[in-house]
Amino acid sequence: MALLPDPVQKLINSFERLPGIGPKSASRLTFYLLRAPEDLSNQLSDALSKLKSATTLCQRCFNITSSGNTICEICSNPNRDSTQLCIVEEPLDVLALERTAGFNGLYHVLHGVLSPIEGIGPQDLKIQPLLERLSSENIKEIILATNASMEGDATALYLQKQIIRHDIRVTRLARGLPMGSDLEYADQNTLLRALAGRQELD
Amino acid sequence: MALLPDPVQKLINSFERLPGIGPKSASRLTFYLLRAPEDLSNQLSDALSKLKSATTLCQRCFNITSSGNTICEICSNPNRDSTQLCIVEEPLDVLALERTAGFNGLYHVLHGVLSPIEGIGPQDLKIQPLLERLSSENIKEIILATNASMEGDATALYLQKQIIRHDIRVTRLARGLPMGSDLEYADQNTLLRALAGRQELD
Repeated sequence: MALLPDPVQKLINSFERLPGIGPKSASRLTFYLLRAPEDLSNQLSDALSKLKSATTLCQRCFNITSSGNTICEICSNPNRDSTQLCIVEEPLDVLALERTAGFNGLYHVLHGVLSPIEGIGPQDLKIQPLLERLSSENIKEIILATNASMEGDATALYLQKQIIRHDIRVTRLARGLPMGSDLEYADQNTLLRALAGRQELD
Repeated sequence: MALLPDPVQKLINSFERLPGIGPKSASRLTFYLLRAPEDLSNQLSDALSKLKSATTLCQRCFNITSSGNTICEICSNPNRDSTQLCIVEEPLDVLALERTAGFNGLYHVLHGVLSPIEGIGPQDLKIQPLLERLSSENIKEIILATNASMEGDATALYLQKQIIRHDIRVTRLARGLPMGSDLEYADQNTLLRALAGRQELD
């Protein structure tokens, strides 16, 4: 006997397919929506149904943009410094960097990282378009902003070797202690990198 | 300048309105859906849009049921023991108890707890219909299964006083150490209740 009405069970099942949402959270969200004003579930439903049709990838940097645009708002902004290119794994990383307001160049989104275990090679990422940009655009510095993970490092290393042929400065985001952290709780590798990358005080 | 296309930002905003989902999780879920096959967002959207219209409350126990039903599947199941009534706060609690397969009676869902601070009194809960059930149905035992919280306890106490007029056995779910727990990590109140409720070994 089904314990729950079909649409309720279906919503629980759908929520469970999302990352970080287990069976209990899925039930909790569903029952919250059952109690909440109808506009909340309608708003969610509406945003979801438009999500894919209303978005596309920027043809230059492969960030998410509104469908209809070929070039995203960052790429088409004349106030951005087009000589600096920051390479990230995912569109979400662009968002994180933009929030810092510390970078005024352009981006290039790889849409993944090299991962031999998962069978993801250079041809599965937006690397070819990146190399084409290096030839066609006037780029002076590349910031490799892939994650500080094994795959992120390997991808950065691979890209560095590809870029070295061009006369371009290549940098990588600094490693070290995160702000506000305690030395005693830092893991060994982080501490090692913080030591190795120690900087002169003026 | 909007950093994100409108439907993406709207979906993030909608997710943020759900309990337990903060700004970071909301972004992560949204970008996951952008990458995922379209059927996932469509399935979610579909289930959400049908959620309210396809469900209703059982007219007897106020559990969630498919719209079209006046009485839910548990209430209309002749194999359930209609002399036992388990009183819970939310439909989700019915689900939790049903999963244990340890209760074969009927339920009554209060849809909340008494909370003077939030201005929730007896008239805001399904207490009047409960008292009517006590008169019209042949109930021999009431299990007060409200949460083991201050509000849950207060609601159970209030109900107990209402029920005492009827000749019905009233019980409350046992308190004590949760299964698999370590004594040293148990909080003081739990340990106190476990001590007070200690049981003879056969």
